[in-house]
Amino acid sequence: MNYYVGIDGGGTKTAFACYNEEKECVAECILESCHVLQVDREKAISILKQGLERLAQSLKNDVDVHFYICAGLAGYGKDKELRKRIESICEESFKNHKYVICNDGEIALAGALNGKDGILVISGTGSIAYSTLQGHTERSGGWGYMLGDEGSAYWIGKKLLQEYTKQCDGRHSRTDLVEFVKNSLKLKDDYDLISYTANILKNDRGKIAKLALLVNDLAKKNDKAALRIYDEAAREIAEIIHSLSKSFPNKCYVSYIGGVWKAKELIIDPLKYYLNENIILEEPKYPPVFGAYLIAYNLFKV
Amino acid sequence: MNYYVGIDGGGTKTAFACYNEEKECVAECILESCHVLQVDREKAISILKQGLERLAQSLKNDVDVHFYICAGLAGYGKDKELRKRIESICEESFKNHKYVICNDGEIALAGALNGKDGILVISGTGSIAYSTLQGHTERSGGWGYMLGDEGSAYWIGKKLLQEYTKQCDGRHSRTDLVEFVKNSLKLKDDYDLISYTANILKNDRGKIAKLALLVNDLAKKNDKAALRIYDEAAREIAEIIHSLSKSFPNKCYVSYIGGVWKAKELIIDPLKYYLNENIILEEPKYPPVFGAYLIAYNLFKV
Repeated sequence: MNYYVGIDGGGTKTAFACYNEEKECVAECILESCHVLQVDREKAISILKQGLERLAQSLKNDVDVHFYICAGLAGYGKDKELRKRIESICEESFKNHKYVICNDGEIALAGALNGKDGILVISGTGSIAYSTLQGHTERSGGWGYMLGDEGSAYWIGKKLLQEYTKQCDGRHSRTDLVEFVKNSLKLKDDYDLISYTANILKNDRGKIAKLALLVNDLAKKNDKAALRIYDEAAREIAEIIHSLSKSFPNKCYVSYIGGVWKAKELIIDPLKYYLNENIILEEPKYPPVFGAYLIAYNLFKV
Repeated sequence: MNYYVGIDGGGTKTAFACYNEEKECVAECILESCHVLQVDREKAISILKQGLERLAQSLKNDVDVHFYICAGLAGYGKDKELRKRIESICEESFKNHKYVICNDGEIALAGALNGKDGILVISGTGSIAYSTLQGHTERSGGWGYMLGDEGSAYWIGKKLLQEYTKQCDGRHSRTDLVEFVKNSLKLKDDYDLISYTANILKNDRGKIAKLALLVNDLAKKNDKAALRIYDEAAREIAEIIHSLSKSFPNKCYVSYIGGVWKAKELIIDPLKYYLNENIILEEPKYPPVFGAYLIAYNLFKV
């Protein structure tokens, strides 16, 4: 029998989900990460093979299993060398099966919009957006934290630090932000932030991204400066969305995933304000692994 | 006889200038840097002593020389440990003479405004502003390139990179900027900027600051995006100035030094637009070493 398999290979785990021709999920499993920048070639192959074996074991009543696979793998982007490495791993792992490789953003987009054409904004530690329109995929943002990642948790955390310095100097009006940051980071003096940045933060992407949680706490207490940071983040994200939505003839569906969206209306409300009227913002419908299945189904359905 | 000595101790050189009671410059010399973060204690002492000896040699007709010194030294700021180290060096170097220690920003301010109260904006690789009002000194900005240094060459260089990514994505309208940056940095593909940033720039403060020269070239050719970067830089610098000018009762004199100002009207014109009407912007009148002399003269004149 024919089965459609979605694989979501991210930085922390590899998720597998198997659907039958009646679109019922008949098997799934989660293994460790197969990210090419985190594990070697042999390990990646072993994880992908193992996942398929587990799915097959769940289907042991069926003696003639045909898998049609879509693997959405982190790292499968613009870098040609990485693409080749991933293609070689998949060739080895999926032989005897038909398959297609996407990057993790494309399957997340398919999942969030349930296979519809549209745009997905991923805003976690970094930020990037993907669009799919009539089989054609584009991206915007996602240049990394050194150059941009506008509206990401890193970007929001950095804005918090900058707002702190501006309030300390009297460039911006003081809100509760300075005292809140000082207490949270255990700074004695305003200027201790300089040594804290040099010795503790050290431009560490993850540590600065975590500071976004402080912005969230402050914004919940209605701190004007924190709300302004979310407003600026929303404006940057709207800019990313509009750069992609220009290609859409009429209305354009947009969804979102990633840690920044946990701030809910704090980021969603200003975003709606900045978005053109042809944009329809939707909560994400299904997880990325389901998006991978959808792509496999639409491509290979018999 | 009494002489007033100005010393400007920066990161690249130490300048000495000696004036008599008739305000005539009677001796000067330039030695290497005595910056406490660049040379050890003994070396710093030897440079400062040597400078005074050279001045004294020029005054050999005078057998009863009294020096009244103002030393404006880089590093003499908020850091208590550094302050102590510098004070100990000066105690050893200037014994038998009356002296006062300032930081290099304060003497630059005194020089630029010829001893008048007001504000000096220093915008080179980094940025900071100092104000002097009735003997009281304040600062704004200058939190370092990780946190701010708004309007500095580093900040302008970073904005260029961000504008490049936004134009590549179609978030901002394309100008000549992308092709100009690609040619200047010898990038083949738009996305080569990512590896250029990771492998060549490596968040190196000096290298990114040098990119400000490209913004200058583009702005001279009337590139809209480059002009917008200068406009944003000017708005940030205006914010720094206003945070200090609030304390001034009426009009407030402001001057400027540092590499960014070589852009002349490209930065000065938008700055004038953003400045309050009580601000009087003046070209810098004298160099920092003259400012140090002025402070010594005003403090110690007999």
